[in-house]
Parts: sequence; structure tokens; C-alpha cells
Amino acid sequence: MTHTASLRIGLFGFGTVGQGLYDVLQRTPLLRTEIARICVRDRFKQRSAPARLLTFDRDEILDDPDIDVVVELIDDPDAAFDIVSRALESGKAAVSANKRMIASRLPELLELQSRTGMPFLYEASTCGSIPIIRNLEEYYDNDLLRSVRAIVNGTTNYILTALHSPHTGGYGEALAGAQRLGFAESDPTLDVEGYDAAFKTTIIAAHAFGVVLNPSQVVRRGITAITPYDVSVARQLTCSIKLLSTVQLHGDSLSVMALPAFTPNGLHLASIQNEMNAVQLTAAFSDAQLLVGKGAGGGPTASAVLSDIAAIRHTYRYEYKKMQQPVRPTVDHGIEVSVYVRASAAILREVPFRSIEVDHRGITGSYVIGRIVLDDLHRCSAFLDPSVFIAIVHDG
Amino acid sequence: MTHTASLRIGLFGFGTVGQGLYDVLQRTPLLRTEIARICVRDRFKQRSAPARLLTFDRDEILDDPDIDVVVELIDDPDAAFDIVSRALESGKAAVSANKRMIASRLPELLELQSRTGMPFLYEASTCGSIPIIRNLEEYYDNDLLRSVRAIVNGTTNYILTALHSPHTGGYGEALAGAQRLGFAESDPTLDVEGYDAAFKTTIIAAHAFGVVLNPSQVVRRGITAITPYDVSVARQLTCSIKLLSTVQLHGDSLSVMALPAFTPNGLHLASIQNEMNAVQLTAAFSDAQLLVGKGAGGGPTASAVLSDIAAIRHTYRYEYKKMQQPVRPTVDHGIEVSVYVRASAAILREVPFRSIEVDHRGITGSYVIGRIVLDDLHRCSAFLDPSVFIAIVHDG
Repeated sequence: MTHTASLRIGLFGFGTVGQGLYDVLQRTPLLRTEIARICVRDRFKQRSAPARLLTFDRDEILDDPDIDVVVELIDDPDAAFDIVSRALESGKAAVSANKRMIASRLPELLELQSRTGMPFLYEASTCGSIPIIRNLEEYYDNDLLRSVRAIVNGTTNYILTALHSPHTGGYGEALAGAQRLGFAESDPTLDVEGYDAAFKTTIIAAHAFGVVLNPSQVVRRGITAITPYDVSVARQLTCSIKLLSTVQLHGDSLSVMALPAFTPNGLHLASIQNEMNAVQLTAAFSDAQLLVGKGAGGGPTASAVLSDIAAIRHTYRYEYKKMQQPVRPTVDHGIEVSVYVRASAAILREVPFRSIEVDHRGITGSYVIGRIVLDDLHRCSAFLDPSVFIAIVHDG
Repeated sequence: MTHTASLRIGLFGFGTVGQGLYDVLQRTPLLRTEIARICVRDRFKQRSAPARLLTFDRDEILDDPDIDVVVELIDDPDAAFDIVSRALESGKAAVSANKRMIASRLPELLELQSRTGMPFLYEASTCGSIPIIRNLEEYYDNDLLRSVRAIVNGTTNYILTALHSPHTGGYGEALAGAQRLGFAESDPTLDVEGYDAAFKTTIIAAHAFGVVLNPSQVVRRGITAITPYDVSVARQLTCSIKLLSTVQLHGDSLSVMALPAFTPNGLHLASIQNEMNAVQLTAAFSDAQLLVGKGAGGGPTASAVLSDIAAIRHTYRYEYKKMQQPVRPTVDHGIEVSVYVRASAAILREVPFRSIEVDHRGITGSYVIGRIVLDDLHRCSAFLDPSVFIAIVHDG
């Protein structure tokens, strides 16, 4: 695959992103990249691509020696892993947007890249059009990174924005609104329970700090229990509630969370509205930096995929530089955090707070804001109770 | 210069940034980068670096075959150009933060890089810690970039923020405040007259659109004429006044400006406060993206310089990919823009507006908001009159 020859893409999946990519490449012949074949599942669906490009047999792409790059844009994480691993094994570069597959199978994917020598890029998997992985790889590899805090899930941010509006009808109505506008899927579990955020947090942790985690190690909780009452308490503290992915260094140890958070309104992150994503990086010398952009949708995701394709043309690959450092942080959730827990008095009594800052019992709601060891929070029964709302309280 | 050997730096200038860089490298031995020699001018100043590193003779660095990278952090643009060109000619990589030198001598610097094959990086020259050049080079090279709008000058943004506060005492007081806090120099001309912004705009145009300009081609105007009255007019239109660098595509032609702008408060750029910098990129597929960070100061600038040094270790160089496109846009200021001009009635009469939206004559001030061809604005006598305040009115 030379610098000037046309790059031949084998595409898996032709949903919004696949179509977006196809459209982009049609409109920009200068990119010298053509989609040579598209593997789809449903034989009877109408599609905007010429029928001669379509195949229903993945081997027609994976066994084709003239295809240079496999772009995988399907949902099923196991099938996606098969496709990517077979592509790499057969000497093809691979591009994916499947955060679930990447986060869950990172050790295998690292081994595959190292053994085959083939590049595997996945910028589109995390924050869509925001070039977060590339920047963590290339630009924040020297300055001493201290934390990454990010809004990585557009669905929950859309719902949370609606819940902060004066006319909010509560979580159910906000979710229904998001579904009507296409910002939430009919089964929104992966988004609203924070799984999607945990996958992306895992990917961020790998590139920001060189730490390979299982997504289950991320302290994760969703937003389904949130009520306008919680929003009003946050507002009293001049905070907005956001679902924040946080990867933060404390000395040699690292905390990794995907949790609702009372985010001070003075922080840029608090002002990120609707389906937008944002990443705030804090480093020793460069101070806080913010990247804002669209995290999902056909155009933004296709744009990130395209950037990966162009990078492959320039023989770019992730070097996972942070993983090669002699000293790497280890995940340790023995740190103390401030947390808001809204629950019944009986449940609140069981939460093993170290110290309590606010203890509020009222007819409309009871809550405690206190300090707690993150591991203790993660293991306490309230954490598993779907009626309880829990949010980290940020110190600014 | 191999991947594992220690990198030896020859540093020119030991002001805030040079000291910041020295401190960073002292604290991070893992970077395997050492400052081998520091060339300074003043023989009698106390410095925090060991005396054995200091030299007053630039040849001691430029003729030293053991020095791999020359980092140039001095003010004088001509001396800076000499240092960088001699470094490249003698087979050394070069890093600079001198936007004035880079913007003014870009054609020569391109020729030098191409002839010597040595890399010249200058991320710190534009928006300090925000990795804008690297992202334009690497990440926004495919998606069809439409515009870059940016706050690139911390001094003027600090002054403008003060002018928007309810207790403002006007431009003079805001400038004096910025000077007291070290955000403005004792001679602030380069900043407040928009020259610094024009230099950075030139650099952005080269990397965003492959267009090499002389900084004098940028339609540039400063903020010295601004009054609280102008701010109150902007406020009525729910806008904030920002000094915006704008590089924008209109079909095949490009407009390049560094001008005060009425920026709608709904845009993120309007909310960038004090000395912060921000860059908003608009592309066909990824939509608007925003990067926010500190644009100046020892830490942020040193962090950007350090990133360049690390990139050199990884044999990175700017490829100026956009310049190699078969079709490049040409600068053409024949486009129509909306503009606010506050001046005396006599001066306003002479401004060649195409159409007028607001014509306000009052005891406290007279202004016109109208459409005008950018070239006509640039050439009209009001543009040169230091008592007149002119601002682009953004359409959102």
C-alpha cells in the first residue's frame, strides 16, 4: 500500500456511519480511497450504495488480497472482533468504532497488533469527531497528565440537559424525548446505565495512562434513578449533574469512574449541552484543556473513521507509548471522594461514609453528602439499588 | 539521533518559557532529554540554571555536533530566523515559539525544511498549549474544513473580558489592569493592535488550508478604540466582543481576518474568558469542534515546546499536506460581510456600505451596522482612523 495508490476499503455494516463514510468518499475523490466492497446482513433492505458493491459473505472481503483496509461498523461485538482479528491476521489494516468490543478485548487486540505488525485504529469509538485518542497518543505523551474528565455519552447528556430545563417532566419524559429525536435507542440500557461510558473510559485509560483494564473495573453507575429533586439539590450548590468519565492520578494510583457528578457551573464541562461530548485534560504544565465536539451521528463518526483511514495511508499506528513506561500507575479505588447519595433513611444509614458534610431529611427527599472511600461506595448495597441516586461531588 | 539515546537540546533564550522548559526536563528524567547548553544575552542576570550550561556565543550551540535539537525562545524575529536557519542548515532539528518570525518568513522556512530535510516544529507559536497545528496537520486533513475561528491572543481577550464586566472603567483601565497582572506588556502594541493575532492567523491559514500568506494580507484591526458604548451595543444584540482570527472558505476563495467581532453569546467562543485561548473548527462532516486552553505563560508554552521535542524524537515533521493538494483556495476579500462601525457621522458617510441594517445617530454615539465588501472595508479611510471602532458582526 503506497502513498499514492488508491486505498481499497472493505466495509462491514452500512448503517448511518457506513453510509456517511460512503457519501464522504464519493464527494472527495482527492482522498484516493474507494469502498471496494460492503458486507451487510439483511439481503432485502434498500441501500444507497450500488448493488455490485454489496456482499453477504464476509470472506469476500477478508480473503480479498486487493483490499488494504477493513472498516468495521457493525454492532455485534463478537462478530466485530472476529472481523478485526481476521483482517489483521491477513495483513490488512483495520478501523473500528466499536467501543464495546475494543474496551472488552483490548489485551487480545494489543497482542494481535504486536504480532501481525498491522495497524488497528479506532478514533471513532470514543467521542466521535473529537480526536481524543490521537491527541492522548501524540500530544499528551510528555506533559505529565493528571486527569481526564469527559462527557463521552451524548444520549445521557441530552437527557440530563432536558432534566435541567425549567420545564422538565422528569427522567421518563426526557428519555422519551431523546428517543423521539433519535438521540436514544429503543433499548437505551447501554447508554443510561453508563456501560457505554465505561467502555470509553477504559479506552481513555489505556491511551492516557497506559493502563489496560476490564470495563468492569470502572466504577460505573447510570442516571436512571435521577429525579428533578436531585437536579434541584445540585442547582443549590451551583452545580449541574453530568455523567462524567473520570480517569485521575493520585500519586502512583489511578481512579477510573463513569458516574453521575455534581459539576460546578464554573467548569466548562457543566455547560456542555444536549448531545455534545467534551474532554477536559489536566496536565502539570499545560493546565486544563478542553476539547468539544459531536460524539455521535453519521457525519462526525464517519469523519473520525476517515481520519483513521488517512492516518493508515500515512503509515500511522498507535504506539501505546504510555504502556512502555517503566513505571505505570495501578488502579486503586482506596481513595476518598465526596459523594451525594439520595435514598431512604434506612438505606442512607448503611452507606459507610467516613464523614458527613450534609445530612438532609425531608418529606420530598433525604440525602447525604459525605466523604467515602470509593471502593466502599462501589461495594455497598445502596450502589446496587436502582431507586438510589448517587453522584460524585466535584471539588472544582 | 536514535529512539533511545538521550536527546541533547541547545536552548536560545532563558525567559519564562525557557525556564519552564528547563524545570520540566529536570523533573521528568524519563523524557531522556537534556538541555546541553543555553545561549543568553545578558551576562549579569541571575539565572536558575547552572552557570556551566550558559553561553553568550551562539556558535557554541550551532557548531556543536552533539546537539540534536535547537530550541529558539528569543524575542527578536531576525535573530530567531538566523538561529533556526543555521540550525536546519547544520543538520539539527529546530523548535520555535516565535510566531512573528514564522508568519513573516514562512516561504523561506518551507524551502529550508525541504532542502535540508530537517524538521522544524512550532506548536507553541499558536495558542500555546492547544495542539492546533498538530491537529490541523494530522487530524483535519481529510474532513473538508470550512472555517477556523479562534481567540489566539490572551492579552486582548483579558482586556475584552474586563470591558464586559459591569464595573468596567474602560479600555485604559482594563489595559492597565492586564499590565499589572502580567497579561499585557509595557508596550502592548503587537497584542492590542492585532498584529500578534495576524501572525497566528497566517500560521493557521498555512496549516488549515495550505495557503502561504504574508501577515500583511490578513485584514487586521485592533481593539484600542473600543469603548463601553460598543460593548453595550453588542450586549443589546446578545453578543460579546472578541478579537477573532477567522480563516474561512467561500467556495474556492478564502477570507483571512484578525478583527474584533460581535460574537453571539450562544457560541462557545463568546464564553472564553480572560487570558484563555480557543479554536473553533468547522468541517463538512464533523461539524463544529472547539479546543480550549491557555495560550501563553511559561508552563503552557513550555508544554507545547516539549511536545515538539518529543515529536522530533519520534521523527515527526510537518508535511504541509494541504499545500500539496492540486487545488488550493486563493485569498479573496471580495466577499461581503456584516460589520459594525462606530464613528462620527462624517466618517460614517464615507464608509462604502452595500446595504445598511441599522443606522443609529445618538448623543452618546453613532454607528452603522451594514453589509460591506471586505476589501472595501479594508481600504476605506475609517479603517485607518484610530478613533473608529470596527467589528465584524457574526451570523452565528
